[in-house]
Amino acid sequence: MKQKPLTHGGDWVGFEEEYGFMPLDLSANVSPFGVPEGVKKAIAEAAERADLYPDPLCRSLRASLSEHSGLPAAHILCGNGAADIIFRLALAKRPKKALVLAPTFSEYRTAMEAVQCEVKTYLLKEERDFRVGEDILDAIGEDIDIVFLCEPNNPTGLSDSEAFLAKILSRVEEIGGILFIDECFHDFLTEPEVGSMIPYVETHPSLIVLKAFTKMYGMAGVRLGYCLCSDEELLQKMLDRGQPWSVSSLAQAAGIAAVGETAYVEHVRAHMDRERPRLMEGLRNFGFRVVPGEANYLLFRAPADLAEKLRRKGVVIRSCSNYDGLDENWFRSAVRTEEETDRLLAAIKEVL
Amino acid sequence: MKQKPLTHGGDWVGFEEEYGFMPLDLSANVSPFGVPEGVKKAIAEAAERADLYPDPLCRSLRASLSEHSGLPAAHILCGNGAADIIFRLALAKRPKKALVLAPTFSEYRTAMEAVQCEVKTYLLKEERDFRVGEDILDAIGEDIDIVFLCEPNNPTGLSDSEAFLAKILSRVEEIGGILFIDECFHDFLTEPEVGSMIPYVETHPSLIVLKAFTKMYGMAGVRLGYCLCSDEELLQKMLDRGQPWSVSSLAQAAGIAAVGETAYVEHVRAHMDRERPRLMEGLRNFGFRVVPGEANYLLFRAPADLAEKLRRKGVVIRSCSNYDGLDENWFRSAVRTEEETDRLLAAIKEVL
Repeated sequence: MKQKPLTHGGDWVGFEEEYGFMPLDLSANVSPFGVPEGVKKAIAEAAERADLYPDPLCRSLRASLSEHSGLPAAHILCGNGAADIIFRLALAKRPKKALVLAPTFSEYRTAMEAVQCEVKTYLLKEERDFRVGEDILDAIGEDIDIVFLCEPNNPTGLSDSEAFLAKILSRVEEIGGILFIDECFHDFLTEPEVGSMIPYVETHPSLIVLKAFTKMYGMAGVRLGYCLCSDEELLQKMLDRGQPWSVSSLAQAAGIAAVGETAYVEHVRAHMDRERPRLMEGLRNFGFRVVPGEANYLLFRAPADLAEKLRRKGVVIRSCSNYDGLDENWFRSAVRTEEETDRLLAAIKEVL
Repeated sequence: MKQKPLTHGGDWVGFEEEYGFMPLDLSANVSPFGVPEGVKKAIAEAAERADLYPDPLCRSLRASLSEHSGLPAAHILCGNGAADIIFRLALAKRPKKALVLAPTFSEYRTAMEAVQCEVKTYLLKEERDFRVGEDILDAIGEDIDIVFLCEPNNPTGLSDSEAFLAKILSRVEEIGGILFIDECFHDFLTEPEVGSMIPYVETHPSLIVLKAFTKMYGMAGVRLGYCLCSDEELLQKMLDRGQPWSVSSLAQAAGIAAVGETAYVEHVRAHMDRERPRLMEGLRNFGFRVVPGEANYLLFRAPADLAEKLRRKGVVIRSCSNYDGLDENWFRSAVRTEEETDRLLAAIKEVL
């Protein structure tokens, strides 16, 4: 099969094949502290009985997530990464018309197009700092079946206030649609309890909140995500409209262990609070425009050849030229360790 | 979410919740010798760097499978279990009409129906020992876009000759369709090199052969499957019509290790050759009709309450009443260790 250029970050394998060593990979937005020890141990233990089929209903994992989120297990659906959830939703609902931000994570569009759903774009404008405006309410016309938001958004790192999201939710309810809010990066915010729409799930069955383990728990290779929704019929349909065993038993065990890693999460969050401003300042010192992102990555504007020049130095950042609404001058870098930030800034200095 | 009764075997979690202990589970068709040591080790090692995204193109794994199968890596697509491949095919081809056997593995139909494909059934009749007849050629009309075969078939365990399959392939080519042959259980046959359609893949781009690691390598919990096909455009489309990271890095590492486990495979196969006839004879001694399956499971006809009675004794076999074309008198049991066969036969004796 032809190896089409990959459209996402994190292709360390492609780099290694080309250069013969592992890059400093800042193109994937994952915790810089690796897999928590408890999660590694849980995976190794689960491998012992990986001859058994995984539980298709993820009963133990959902019980853990229920305790963690305060929502009933019946309102939780697990998937093979957050992306699996998005594709299942597409197959379960078969929306005719979706509203998607630009720029944003590309899998919403890909999944919608896989079921021949028309995708309308709400353009986040540079001159408005890529923020969602009140005019999104007008964009949610009667013909829209589903609205995808990403809070904080990928790649901008910006999030909206709870009050504003509640207004969008009301509008979506008015037109009888679904509001899908991807909170995969929400735990990286300084105050993650502020602005999350999870408290609305129980009373608003047309709201789906997506969460992933991938980023915060340094588990991108394990594949595990879940969504919260009080429309049980929809969740059942999503479960049915895909294979029964999409979440491996290794991922289920890893997820249960991860839920207990509260100290790890606090550590990552405190680190981001220190390191994010330092990276932002460092990038601004080069004269780059940096969007004031609140998550574990930053979007910035720089000379178009920056990523290629850095790549030759073994440093991989994410070119954002394939994001709808961005051009080849935009890049995204993960916020990682102090040492990695220093290496990135030194490499930029060298190539400029 | 409502917990709908599961339609497949292998629900040891449901049993454990109900009874408080692990059953003797004969409802899942997995190697009875557990996860090979090399595979366990590979998973534990991969867990160390599971913070990295998995390679979406599975480059190392496909290189291993290429060497193993003799086919170019470009003709191999990996998925999150064999079922992921079936769903990707449905989304990539969007067939209008499919021909599916009955009884057979239910995911072909589920995946086709997920993309609103009409499913025509070719009924395998008990009086013909559930064998595919020459009349399947007539059933493959001009309106058929895809034909699903399972060799050996699940749950019958019966396989067809290469000559007959080649005839079906010719017919499918004649009508411009796709022939999908699921060989997930083929490695359990006494002579696995006989009857496989893999040698046809390179010269017949409308043929897709499905393989899984789940069963032979005792890796059902890991989730890993792949297909072989020389239509590179189709494989690319299947790759695109789903999330990029469906195969976890744990599964990729496990797969590479599994390919090297030739002694394990020989051991499983030799065991099946001894144990399958013993289980068959044991079941026949109770007066049950046993289909002469060639894989690691046997389909048999017994009193309708057998599974329920055995369940209460801690022994779980697969009721086949939810298979199209079978009723509540049909059951499937995996062929497992001598001790497990003895326990099953003793339990049947007790409950009859």
